[in-house]
Amino acid sequence: MNRYAKDFPILDQNVNGHPLVYLDSAATSQKPFAVIDAVERYYKENNSNVHRGVHTLGSRATDQYEGAREKVRRFIGASSTKEIVYTRGTTTSLNLVASSYARSRLQAGDEIVISPSEHHSNLIPWQQAAKATGATLKYFELEPDGTLDLKKAEAVITDRTKLVAIAYVSNSLGTIFPVKELAAIVHRHGGVLVVDGAQAVPHFKVDVQDLDCDFLAFSGHKMMAPTGIGVLYGKESLLEQMEPMEFGGEMIDHVDLYESTWKELPWKFEGGTPIIAGAIGLGAAIDYLEQVGMDVVEAYDRDLTRYALERLSTLEGVEIYGPRENRVGSVLFNVDGVHPHDVATVLDAEGIAVRAGHHCCQPLMRWLEVSATARASFYLYNDEADVDRLVAGLQKTKEYFGNVLG
Amino acid sequence: MNRYAKDFPILDQNVNGHPLVYLDSAATSQKPFAVIDAVERYYKENNSNVHRGVHTLGSRATDQYEGAREKVRRFIGASSTKEIVYTRGTTTSLNLVASSYARSRLQAGDEIVISPSEHHSNLIPWQQAAKATGATLKYFELEPDGTLDLKKAEAVITDRTKLVAIAYVSNSLGTIFPVKELAAIVHRHGGVLVVDGAQAVPHFKVDVQDLDCDFLAFSGHKMMAPTGIGVLYGKESLLEQMEPMEFGGEMIDHVDLYESTWKELPWKFEGGTPIIAGAIGLGAAIDYLEQVGMDVVEAYDRDLTRYALERLSTLEGVEIYGPRENRVGSVLFNVDGVHPHDVATVLDAEGIAVRAGHHCCQPLMRWLEVSATARASFYLYNDEADVDRLVAGLQKTKEYFGNVLG
Repeated sequence: MNRYAKDFPILDQNVNGHPLVYLDSAATSQKPFAVIDAVERYYKENNSNVHRGVHTLGSRATDQYEGAREKVRRFIGASSTKEIVYTRGTTTSLNLVASSYARSRLQAGDEIVISPSEHHSNLIPWQQAAKATGATLKYFELEPDGTLDLKKAEAVITDRTKLVAIAYVSNSLGTIFPVKELAAIVHRHGGVLVVDGAQAVPHFKVDVQDLDCDFLAFSGHKMMAPTGIGVLYGKESLLEQMEPMEFGGEMIDHVDLYESTWKELPWKFEGGTPIIAGAIGLGAAIDYLEQVGMDVVEAYDRDLTRYALERLSTLEGVEIYGPRENRVGSVLFNVDGVHPHDVATVLDAEGIAVRAGHHCCQPLMRWLEVSATARASFYLYNDEADVDRLVAGLQKTKEYFGNVLG
Repeated sequence: MNRYAKDFPILDQNVNGHPLVYLDSAATSQKPFAVIDAVERYYKENNSNVHRGVHTLGSRATDQYEGAREKVRRFIGASSTKEIVYTRGTTTSLNLVASSYARSRLQAGDEIVISPSEHHSNLIPWQQAAKATGATLKYFELEPDGTLDLKKAEAVITDRTKLVAIAYVSNSLGTIFPVKELAAIVHRHGGVLVVDGAQAVPHFKVDVQDLDCDFLAFSGHKMMAPTGIGVLYGKESLLEQMEPMEFGGEMIDHVDLYESTWKELPWKFEGGTPIIAGAIGLGAAIDYLEQVGMDVVEAYDRDLTRYALERLSTLEGVEIYGPRENRVGSVLFNVDGVHPHDVATVLDAEGIAVRAGHHCCQPLMRWLEVSATARASFYLYNDEADVDRLVAGLQKTKEYFGNVLG
């Protein structure tokens, strides 16, 4: 067991008679004691609604909730907490940009550019925004290994390009896309860059000022925090111009019978009682990750991904998708002649949890010319022994189906 | 200490040197061990993303998540889990109806009718929907005691009324509004009734089929569940016609580069990784409330509210707002010559948590001709001793400010 695994109580169990090997962190990560305890402590000691309370519990809850926002700000290098909007997750963050930024600005003749490898949450909002505004949705062309050739990308981006949206790390291919370089190109043409950071922020240091991206969306639950909390980072000047997507308590300044005005940033986007325990849990997750060190997390994830690619490459009849280098967090693969759901089922019988399906990337699956794949994804609590278990499980899968099919 | 208080660990503490008396449950309720433990157990044993997983943890998490939906269905008497949409809370639920139902249906000449006592979350979404569509926003007239005269209400509702939105229980006045009778009137004119159940569902049995309301919105965190989970109930035939507000993973059927189709109810409204632990916590809260019995909860809350009204009425210089009967959960009041924030501050020094401000009801405050009020709100874990502590605290407040002002 690696040195971090002991911090994650869920890993200490048998599944189907075998010690659990959890290789599905790209879907959702496991939570360390530090996060589970922070949530528990909040409910046992400080639970109260925030901002509006004069009483002691209200002040404590508000301090914790806003204190977590400052942790997020520092974690991604934003210049102000005004730029940190709490959301339900990456999906809500991206939809907020699509609704409140794109839909009120785009018109026929404008273009949105995305990659065919995008997760549905960074694809359908733009598809729908294009339909609603008359703008044109265009796609980058990917290289055969699932990377982006910046020269070709540059040719797609023109003065008509008002918005480019791309994942920093593909949730399927594992590709790390050159978002810093894309930001410079997009800005040269007067557009904005929206970065889906769901698979990046958990795995390496992301600095929004260094990248100079205009928006960054990510989820807490993929970075050791509770389910139901996420973040939209946006440049203050852009968020300032945007209208809220939800209206209610907490986000208002003055409410009249027929007119209302909004609170200042970031609260105008946070109508209703917020996800208080979730935000506090996110703060605890950031504390945990920073204690380990994001440079350690990154080196660890990259090494493990490299080791997994090496080991899986030795298996005959296993096809691996995506680039061989500069990737992190997951390996997408198929076993010849075996449906990925069957692969996952056999692995589960061995106590190994991998995901099978389209990974919320149906267009990418068609691009890969497959209906589905298996995916093994890694995080700090995995180690080489987990990969060895996966390899042994795949050998078993091949034997089993070899016999069945043979 | 009452028999239920021991189930709520947060109550067992001193605040400012006094045993905590928590009278702010209308803002957010405290959580019993059963709920806190359910969330903890989920993270320690079963945490996984839902629906898409073939592996064991994924199945367990999905069973718990969907099992909680069935508990919600039964709790409010809906006919199918297709009618139970998980949201972030009441605010998101109401905004979903305003965006996906009202905005695509209303036009100039149509009317929306609400009450001036509505919480901002059941007021601003309609204000904005009216602006966006050209529909007219109209208000019921309230009686001086904050109740609704059904005869007068009936006169406001016409064939032009496409939607009426009202709280079942006012979060400020405590008034229980006649939603069942309103549903019948609204339906006679071909409109729909949207019920804000945030202050009702936690306090007494709400049966959507008996009420025959078209939509019901409520929050988990006000009924002992975690923050960040809520519900939109909608009649299947209405939800069926509505477009999703957020697009992403989990809510799709087929995704092409330029076209997508949606999953069936209720999932088409649940894009992205859901608030899994929150939903499971909501299920545990419903289990707890049902174990107590909603009839017991209701009788308890009504008795306590009645007792508080009686005791506070004995205090000279304390003005109480709202009806004297048929109310539940809270008492809204002011102390002559003392700002409610000062009232709350003095009470906090005595370990008593009440809320002060506009309670997300600025229009109602103007209707009451005050800038703000104090509010004491109750739940199952409070008892008459808590009300006595409040009364003693208010006497102290009066003395203190009497001396200062005198």
